[in-house]
Amino acid sequence: MSELTRVAVDAMGGDNAPEEVVKGAVEAVNASERVKVFLVGRPEAIEPLLAGVDYPKDRLEIVPASEVIETGDPPVQSIRRKKDSSIVVGERMIREQKADAFVSAGSTGAVLVGGQLLVGRIRGIERTPLAPLIPTEKGSSLLIDCGANVDARSSHLVQFARMGSIYMEYVMGIQNPRVALVNIGLEEEKGNALVKETYPLLKACKDINFIGSIEAREIPRGYADVIVCEAFTGNVILKLYEGTASTLVDMIKKSLMSDLRSKIGGLLIKPALKQTMKGLSTSDNGGAPLLGLNGLVVKTHGSSKADEIRNSILQCMTFQEQGITEKIRASLAAEE
Amino acid sequence: MSELTRVAVDAMGGDNAPEEVVKGAVEAVNASERVKVFLVGRPEAIEPLLAGVDYPKDRLEIVPASEVIETGDPPVQSIRRKKDSSIVVGERMIREQKADAFVSAGSTGAVLVGGQLLVGRIRGIERTPLAPLIPTEKGSSLLIDCGANVDARSSHLVQFARMGSIYMEYVMGIQNPRVALVNIGLEEEKGNALVKETYPLLKACKDINFIGSIEAREIPRGYADVIVCEAFTGNVILKLYEGTASTLVDMIKKSLMSDLRSKIGGLLIKPALKQTMKGLSTSDNGGAPLLGLNGLVVKTHGSSKADEIRNSILQCMTFQEQGITEKIRASLAAEE
Repeated sequence: MSELTRVAVDAMGGDNAPEEVVKGAVEAVNASERVKVFLVGRPEAIEPLLAGVDYPKDRLEIVPASEVIETGDPPVQSIRRKKDSSIVVGERMIREQKADAFVSAGSTGAVLVGGQLLVGRIRGIERTPLAPLIPTEKGSSLLIDCGANVDARSSHLVQFARMGSIYMEYVMGIQNPRVALVNIGLEEEKGNALVKETYPLLKACKDINFIGSIEAREIPRGYADVIVCEAFTGNVILKLYEGTASTLVDMIKKSLMSDLRSKIGGLLIKPALKQTMKGLSTSDNGGAPLLGLNGLVVKTHGSSKADEIRNSILQCMTFQEQGITEKIRASLAAEE
Repeated sequence: MSELTRVAVDAMGGDNAPEEVVKGAVEAVNASERVKVFLVGRPEAIEPLLAGVDYPKDRLEIVPASEVIETGDPPVQSIRRKKDSSIVVGERMIREQKADAFVSAGSTGAVLVGGQLLVGRIRGIERTPLAPLIPTEKGSSLLIDCGANVDARSSHLVQFARMGSIYMEYVMGIQNPRVALVNIGLEEEKGNALVKETYPLLKACKDINFIGSIEAREIPRGYADVIVCEAFTGNVILKLYEGTASTLVDMIKKSLMSDLRSKIGGLLIKPALKQTMKGLSTSDNGGAPLLGLNGLVVKTHGSSKADEIRNSILQCMTFQEQGITEKIRASLAAEE
């Protein structure tokens, strides 16, 4: 493994940019000798953060980009107009083969649109799904698709299943990952038109371990490694999941403040509870990959801290070293 | 209010039938003088449970039904073939105007199919949504539709919004209920084809308080009283909500057993935590109404205990006394 994985990182994206992004990038190049990072953004904002920091100079470079796409900016227009923004410059580096991957905590819409317009789809891939890892009781599951393109067709979902399976097997190291289709019942005849059409197609796929339907109730239990759905459903699942967990935690915290007895109890359980809640954090896994592109684009949480940036960069390295793009290309042959 | 509301109750449906159902029915007639209950089921199973129990004999009757539809039975076939089942007999009582409402903890599929085939839709109502109340941080929201008919059209969703609004205002007592459409972003141009088509239609409804889109993340916070979506999404939301809450509670319980310190803390916080969890229970509200029928059908949880059955019966009384069916009929005029 002599070749370096080259990762362009959006130094200007996210709530904690550029400080945490730069910190995460430094941690990544210090953690592995097999990765090179390009910090894309305003040099005058990045350089002071690197002053006096110890890191291998030949594996961490600044690539200037004068503009920033804000979260509220309309994605398509921003990608077209802000040609010197960190997202456009970073994603274009993949197209120009100056980078293998791009990591951003910035505007999800712009990162997705840029992925399609600037990086480009693998030939034969119809759609490029955004596939976050969601925490479960047993570990993590890949929820594919949570992107911006809704109203998918069954052929899209079959490609999502294949790409998700490859990702979980070779990047996350899950052997023979269990692939399930989100449905409102377990019987094959249940579901909406899309699900009914997709089910037999997935059943016929010999290259994935399709275990059938999964009801939303079972998702937090970790019964599947790859959870396939179209993006409207995926977004509802992802956001309700986050919303329910955070509301419940808030309610529990409030109940722990309700009287003295509970306050004392709350102090006692704090370490164990913190440990449990840490198990529900996904930042250890890095960000959500946008799959099916000629290269990897990873969207991390807007609130990413250094550890999520670092892990996302290292995740790009595994992606590259495992030849995921080539594996996805090869999986398209199985469609014929 | 001299007329009694007549409620047929499925004595054989649910995990705790007939014991808890009979108990709930007795509690209901003892709680209000304005309700009459027909316990539909096998007399030999019901009668022993009433022996020695104190209740007004003229307001609690047994209506014999020899068959039982099991949870696993195919809904449509069961409704057609098991003509002497408690669900068929009970729902037919509404059609024959011998009852105003029907309450069942039995097979959801059979109760829904029977509602459509036996009770019948209000003329002009295109679909009859199942609308459970889900717990939120602030109280409860009506999630409409969680039924079995997926792939809805925008005109269905508009009727759901109107019926849900009427239900929350007159049965649950929420003034000017806030109606929101489930979406994956707050902007009007976001969403799938169905949502984009429905949004302007809801915006144009003068008889509801439409507050726009709601992202799934906000549902547990209680930002809307009526949450409108098609049934596939509704089922995903309902089940993920239950699944996430129960998984999280299990994980917290496990963390409270992890060491001595946490065990002691766990004992101390138990009462406050129990109180909080009780706030998340929906049994106080009764079951989920199936709306748009010529009468009310209420589906309670399969695991219903007496209190949920009792509250569901009393909910039927409010429904009847408030003239909800007539109000729904009148709302159809607003469509013209």
